[in-house]
Amino acid sequence: MTEHVDLSRERAEIAALASGFLPRLTDWLRIPSISADPAHHEDVAASAGWLAGALRSDGWPVVQVWDDTEALPAVYACWPSDDPDAPTVLVYGHHDVQPVDPLAEWLHPPFEPVVAGGQLFARGACDDKGHVALHLLAMRAHLAATGRPTPAVTLKLLAEGEEESGSPHIAELLRAHADELSCDLIVVSDTGMFAEGVPSVCTGMRGVAAAQVTFRGQRVDLHSGQFGGAVPNPATELARLVAALHDGDGRVQVPGFYDDVREPTDAEREAFATLPFDQDAWLAGPAAGARATTGEYGWSTLERLWVRPTAEVNGLGGGYQGPGAKTIVPTDAFAKLSFRLVPDQVPDKIIAGVRQFVAEHTPGGIEAELDVEGGVPPCLSDLSHPGVAAVVDAMTAAFGQEVLFSREGGAGPEAIIQAELGGVPLAFLGVGLPDDRIHAPNEKVSIDLLYKGAEAAACLWRLLGERAEQVRRTP
Amino acid sequence: MTEHVDLSRERAEIAALASGFLPRLTDWLRIPSISADPAHHEDVAASAGWLAGALRSDGWPVVQVWDDTEALPAVYACWPSDDPDAPTVLVYGHHDVQPVDPLAEWLHPPFEPVVAGGQLFARGACDDKGHVALHLLAMRAHLAATGRPTPAVTLKLLAEGEEESGSPHIAELLRAHADELSCDLIVVSDTGMFAEGVPSVCTGMRGVAAAQVTFRGQRVDLHSGQFGGAVPNPATELARLVAALHDGDGRVQVPGFYDDVREPTDAEREAFATLPFDQDAWLAGPAAGARATTGEYGWSTLERLWVRPTAEVNGLGGGYQGPGAKTIVPTDAFAKLSFRLVPDQVPDKIIAGVRQFVAEHTPGGIEAELDVEGGVPPCLSDLSHPGVAAVVDAMTAAFGQEVLFSREGGAGPEAIIQAELGGVPLAFLGVGLPDDRIHAPNEKVSIDLLYKGAEAAACLWRLLGERAEQVRRTP
Repeated sequence: MTEHVDLSRERAEIAALASGFLPRLTDWLRIPSISADPAHHEDVAASAGWLAGALRSDGWPVVQVWDDTEALPAVYACWPSDDPDAPTVLVYGHHDVQPVDPLAEWLHPPFEPVVAGGQLFARGACDDKGHVALHLLAMRAHLAATGRPTPAVTLKLLAEGEEESGSPHIAELLRAHADELSCDLIVVSDTGMFAEGVPSVCTGMRGVAAAQVTFRGQRVDLHSGQFGGAVPNPATELARLVAALHDGDGRVQVPGFYDDVREPTDAEREAFATLPFDQDAWLAGPAAGARATTGEYGWSTLERLWVRPTAEVNGLGGGYQGPGAKTIVPTDAFAKLSFRLVPDQVPDKIIAGVRQFVAEHTPGGIEAELDVEGGVPPCLSDLSHPGVAAVVDAMTAAFGQEVLFSREGGAGPEAIIQAELGGVPLAFLGVGLPDDRIHAPNEKVSIDLLYKGAEAAACLWRLLGERAEQVRRTP
Repeated sequence: MTEHVDLSRERAEIAALASGFLPRLTDWLRIPSISADPAHHEDVAASAGWLAGALRSDGWPVVQVWDDTEALPAVYACWPSDDPDAPTVLVYGHHDVQPVDPLAEWLHPPFEPVVAGGQLFARGACDDKGHVALHLLAMRAHLAATGRPTPAVTLKLLAEGEEESGSPHIAELLRAHADELSCDLIVVSDTGMFAEGVPSVCTGMRGVAAAQVTFRGQRVDLHSGQFGGAVPNPATELARLVAALHDGDGRVQVPGFYDDVREPTDAEREAFATLPFDQDAWLAGPAAGARATTGEYGWSTLERLWVRPTAEVNGLGGGYQGPGAKTIVPTDAFAKLSFRLVPDQVPDKIIAGVRQFVAEHTPGGIEAELDVEGGVPPCLSDLSHPGVAAVVDAMTAAFGQEVLFSREGGAGPEAIIQAELGGVPLAFLGVGLPDDRIHAPNEKVSIDLLYKGAEAAACLWRLLGERAEQVRRTP
C-alpha cells in the first residue's frame, strides 16, 4: 500500500539548514504567548508579529497578521505554486501556548529555552511553535531540493492565536477569510506519534467541551461554629455534584452523554490492541508518572484515551486555601470541568446536558452558575483519501520504517476548520511524543523529531504535486 | 432565683470612662495579629506588646508577655486583691484575629477601624479584642465604683495569641504557668448572646477538630486529552471523599463519629424550643444571608448548631483556578475539613476516625496525606455553681431584663483550660451578636454592648467578692 519514496535530497537540505533552525525557534519561544491569560494578550500579538517576520524573511509572498475579528491575532501566509494544476494545501497550527503554572515545578524558566540531551525545553516547544516552525524549514528544503522557484503545491499556513483557549473565535475567523483559506487538503501539525521509535499517523482527535460550575451559598463566609451544620456548604454540595459525574463503572452521568457516541469497529479495536503499548512502562514513565490506570469499565487504556468520552475536573476552588485552618462555611466553590468528546458527539448538546445535570444536582439554598468555556467537536481522518495516503508515504520515508495509526486524546479546532472549509479532507502530520509534557511543567520536544517532521513535510509537498490529479477536489 | 443587683455606680463610672475607650481599642485593632499566617506573627507579638502596655498604664501590678513556650506571645496580667478571703478569677480571651480574605468584600479595610451606626467595624472588633478590652474598662470602673485600692477578687487575665489557629500550644502554655494561673473560677469572654434585645448566657461550646486531606495523583499536571479518562483524577477522587462524608440524612460517616455524643436531655431541647428564634429572619438576615437551612435529619436548627456535631469543608483547592480553561488532570487536590464536636466527643478520637475514613476512601493510584490542624474539646458550664450564678446576676443587672441560656456553636480552648487548671468551674461573659460577622468580612461589634459587658464584668467582681465563701474552691 505504501509507495517507496526517496527523500534524500530533502534530508540533505534540512541538514544544511539545521544550524539556523534552533536559534530562530528559540527566539520565538521566548515570547510568553499565553492566550488564556488576558495579561499575556500583548505577547500573543508579539508572537504573531514574530512569525509574520520570519515568514517574510523566508520569502513567503503573502504574509498577513489577522486581527480583524474578535480572535486573538492569527498569522496567515501563502506561497502560490506556479503550476496551474497544483493542489492547494492548508497547514494548520497555532502560536499561542498553555499557561505555565505550577511555575515552581519547572526546572528551567518556561520562556528561557534550554537544549539538553537532544531535547528543547520551553513552553510551546512541542505545542505548537515547534510544529509550526518545522514547516518554515520544510518549505526552504522543498524549494532547494526540487530546485523550484515556487512550491509544488500552493501552500497556505494558518497559525491560530487562541487554540489553547479552545479556539473560541475560529469559526468567525474562517468565515471572514473563507476565500484565502480555500484548499484541497488540510494538514494539521499539532499532534504526536505513538512513541519514540514507533512513528505513527494520527487518524482522529477527541473534541472537548468545557465549563465552570460555581455554587454560591451564603453572602459572606460564615463562622463554621456559629452556622456549620445548619446552612448548606457550597464546597460540600459541589463535591457531591462532582462525585455524581461518574457511576461506579466510570460512566459519565450527564444526561444524553453517550447518545451520539460512534462505537469503534471491531477492526479498530483489534488495530489498537496490536500497538506496542506497555501499560506499566507508560504508567511509570515520565509521561504519566501515574500509579494506576482507571476509567470506564470494559475498555482498554488506549480505547479510554482515544475512542471513549470522558469527564474531568481540571480545577477545584473555594473557601480558605491559605496556610493553617480557617473554620468557615465558604460563600462559594467552583469546579472547572471538561469533557473529552468522540465522534459524533456535539459540544453544544453535551453542554446542554451538563446544564441539566447541574440543575438536577443543585440543592436548596445553593445558586448555581455555569460558565461555558467553549467547545470543539471531535474529528476523524479519512485514510482512503489520496492526500492522507501521501502523508503516510512521506512519514514512512522520513522514518524509514512502517508507520502505524493511532488517535489523539486531545482536542483542537480541526473539526470546525474542516466543516467551515466545506468538508475538506483532513490529515495529521505531527512528531510530538507522549512524554513531551505539553500543558505541564518542563514541556519539551525532540529536536531530531522536528527535523524528521520537516523532512516528511518537505517530501509531502513534492508527493502532492506529483499526485495533483487525485488530490485536487475540483479538477 | 436571680438576686436583684444594683450596678448604678459601675454604670456611672463606665459612662465617665467611655470617651477614652474607643480610641484605645481602635489603636489595638490596627495591628493585624493574624495567627494563622506566619507572615503576621510579628504583628501577633506587636499586639501582645500593645495589650501589655495598656494594662501597665491602667495600673495592673503584674503584667507579662509570655513567649517562653512554642505558643505565639500571650499576655498575662494579675491584680491581686488585698482581701485575704477574696476568690481568684481568671478571665480568658485572645488577642489574635482571623485571616481577612476575601479582602475584596470588606467595605472598609479590615485593620482601619470605622465607627458607624453605633457599631465598630474591624477584624477583631468582636472576636476577640473588643471583649478583652471591655475587661480593662471594667476593672477601672470596678475600682472607681467601689472606692477600693485593689479589686474585690484577685483578677487574672490571660489573652492568648493563637486561639484563631486552634490554640495548638495552649496546654503547654498552661502547664508552664500553672502557678500563676491557679484560680477558683474561669470567666471566658469570647462568646455572644442569643440576639440583640435577648441577653443570654452561654452554657457550653462545641469543640473542633480540623485536618487537611490532600490527594496526590500523577507527578505533573497531565494533558486531559492525552491522559484523561485513563488515570485517576485527584480532584474527582477528593470530591468523592467529601461527598461520602455525609449520608442522605446528613449524618457524618466518619467511623465512630457519634460514639461519644452526649444526647441533650428532653428539658434542654424544650428550653431551646422556647427561645425566640425566628428561622426565616435568621436565614434572611445579615448574619447568615442564607437561602435555606439544612443539616442532620430530626434536629432543629438551634440543635444542629449547639448540640449536634458536624463535618464541614472550609476550603477546596487543586488544579487550575485562573481565568479561562486549562484542560489538565491536576497532580493533586485538597480539602480543608473541620468537625464541630459536642460533649463528650474527643478530638483525637475523631481525627483517628478521619484517618480511617480517608484510608477507606483513597482509591488506587492516589496517595493521601492528612495534616492535622489541631483540636479543641467541647465544654459545658455548670449552672448550679455560685460563680456561674453570679455571672447570670451581673448580666441580668446590666441588661435590666431576664437573661436566657444558649450555647455556642463555636469552639475555643475552654475545655483544655478547664482540664489543665484542675477542673475549675467555667462561666461565659460575652456580648457578641450573631450578625457580628466574626471570621467573615466586615466584622463588627456593638459599642453599646461592649459597655453593657463592661458593666456586667465590673459588677461581677463586686458580687464575687461578696460571695467569696461560696465561690472559693479551697476555703
